[in-house]
Amino acid sequence: QFGSSQIDDELLARFEKLTGKKPHHFLRRGIFFSHRDMHTALNLYEQGKPFYLYTGRGPSSDAMHLGHLISFMFCKWLQDVFDVPLVIQLTDDEKVLWKDLEIEDAIKLAYENAKDIIACGFNIDKTFIFSNLEHIGNNPEFYKNMIRIQKRVTFNQVKGIFGFGDSDPVGKISFPPTQAAPALSTTFPFIFKGAKVQCLIPCGIDQDPYFRMTRDIAPKLGIPKPALLHSIFFPALQGSKTKMSASDTNSAIFLTDTPKQIKNKVNKHAFSGGQATVEEHRKIGGNCEIDTSYQWLRFFLEDDDKLETLRK
Amino acid sequence: QFGSSQIDDELLARFEKLTGKKPHHFLRRGIFFSHRDMHTALNLYEQGKPFYLYTGRGPSSDAMHLGHLISFMFCKWLQDVFDVPLVIQLTDDEKVLWKDLEIEDAIKLAYENAKDIIACGFNIDKTFIFSNLEHIGNNPEFYKNMIRIQKRVTFNQVKGIFGFGDSDPVGKISFPPTQAAPALSTTFPFIFKGAKVQCLIPCGIDQDPYFRMTRDIAPKLGIPKPALLHSIFFPALQGSKTKMSASDTNSAIFLTDTPKQIKNKVNKHAFSGGQATVEEHRKIGGNCEIDTSYQWLRFFLEDDDKLETLRK
Repeated sequence: QFGSSQIDDELLARFEKLTGKKPHHFLRRGIFFSHRDMHTALNLYEQGKPFYLYTGRGPSSDAMHLGHLISFMFCKWLQDVFDVPLVIQLTDDEKVLWKDLEIEDAIKLAYENAKDIIACGFNIDKTFIFSNLEHIGNNPEFYKNMIRIQKRVTFNQVKGIFGFGDSDPVGKISFPPTQAAPALSTTFPFIFKGAKVQCLIPCGIDQDPYFRMTRDIAPKLGIPKPALLHSIFFPALQGSKTKMSASDTNSAIFLTDTPKQIKNKVNKHAFSGGQATVEEHRKIGGNCEIDTSYQWLRFFLEDDDKLETLRK
Repeated sequence: QFGSSQIDDELLARFEKLTGKKPHHFLRRGIFFSHRDMHTALNLYEQGKPFYLYTGRGPSSDAMHLGHLISFMFCKWLQDVFDVPLVIQLTDDEKVLWKDLEIEDAIKLAYENAKDIIACGFNIDKTFIFSNLEHIGNNPEFYKNMIRIQKRVTFNQVKGIFGFGDSDPVGKISFPPTQAAPALSTTFPFIFKGAKVQCLIPCGIDQDPYFRMTRDIAPKLGIPKPALLHSIFFPALQGSKTKMSASDTNSAIFLTDTPKQIKNKVNKHAFSGGQATVEEHRKIGGNCEIDTSYQWLRFFLEDDDKLETLRK
């Protein structure tokens, strides 16, 4: 799609050869399924040169759900393997602009989400988590890069990429540069000392438009295009055709749910790959492709053998 | 125009009665000619309640010219009379977005202009001059107010007010909130401690659209609408129909010009109100309405009697 590449066996083999680690099951199972310039990041690693990771989260609810964890779990693993810095942007400003939410409430949600993110266990010496509403006003280089990007993106472009219209608030229209800025290492002088370092962004495929835009602009500022790793959506309880959504409690398992709540939600709402009748089910078995419980195990059960046994 | 009021004898009389000062010759001579809610500021002064002044400058050249000084000279006088805080915004970010200018160069111009502005002699304990590119990244409350305003202004509105189009960069489209933010006292917690204080903005009439927009939004944030005092344009050497422009050296006297350069420019380029022939001129005299030298004296010669003598 738009020039991204499939994560194929060759890339995985190179990954394993360079790092000496078996690729994460998200990679082996096609959960992270496509990339841009991942070979560039591997080249740098091979040459002993630096790169860094960037991911983010729009704090729209006080509890994160399982789907939100995918990128963070993957970043934690990438950070362990490559031993690189990671920056995590909490776009609380975005949530104020898009939703009926005031500044103070959005910052509160960012802090709540930060706790869940921290629990993923990143290297505390190499990880920087920030709220836009608090950090941009404490980092002049961030604002400068926002202006540099805002100067080079037109309304026509964001209209084409994001579908903005004339009745949208100007804050939405100028938001994409705010999400682009952390992909430029010069945004964080306290981490990179002004060096122009390659960025690698693991994210959901829905975030790709922001970074296609960023990749157009970075070279105009003398900075390497960020590389990308794209994940599929985490399926809702109701099935793999839907995306888990924080606004529909019955579609999602939240990190704040109790074990009992989780059990009830899965038993009551999880879409089953079972056949229509007991006889049919005995004859041909369940359809794992559409069975939510099995699909979730693909995300969370690391052991390939155990997963295969369960499938059968 | 759009609901602003003429500065009339009644306002000037009230001004003199309340302050005990003769109104500045800019007011007496209609150089500041119109206002919005100036009576509100006078009411506050009468009740011993606070207000503050806000003005600004877009640093497009390293030297300011005489026309740029008008608002600053007037602010200096207002600050002396009312003993109030003054904030001065240098919109170097605006110049990066509008012109072929990089961040570092724009900041340099802001510093050069700041020197000329400081020379006006403001109360150093009650004046805050700042570059947007440096200050916004050092003041989280500024960024928060930008987002609050950006949320409440649509592209349609800035299109209508400023004539922006689809091919404009998103930075231009979202700039008006940056100029609006200093009219909200909560932008400067280190001055106003979070209090919602009335703002009074002396500015050229061309800046009125920014503040009409600001006046629409301020009440939605629980903050009083800023009051305004509008000045006419300072005429170029070539005559009162034109505006002095920094990009045409022969139209302007710069603060860096030597006395000799100034003399030469005035002698060579100043539009004369003299008649076509010596005979005619002797008979009916010069036309001061269009004579640049006389018009400039209206701005810079305080003494009414002396001005009247020269006119005759």
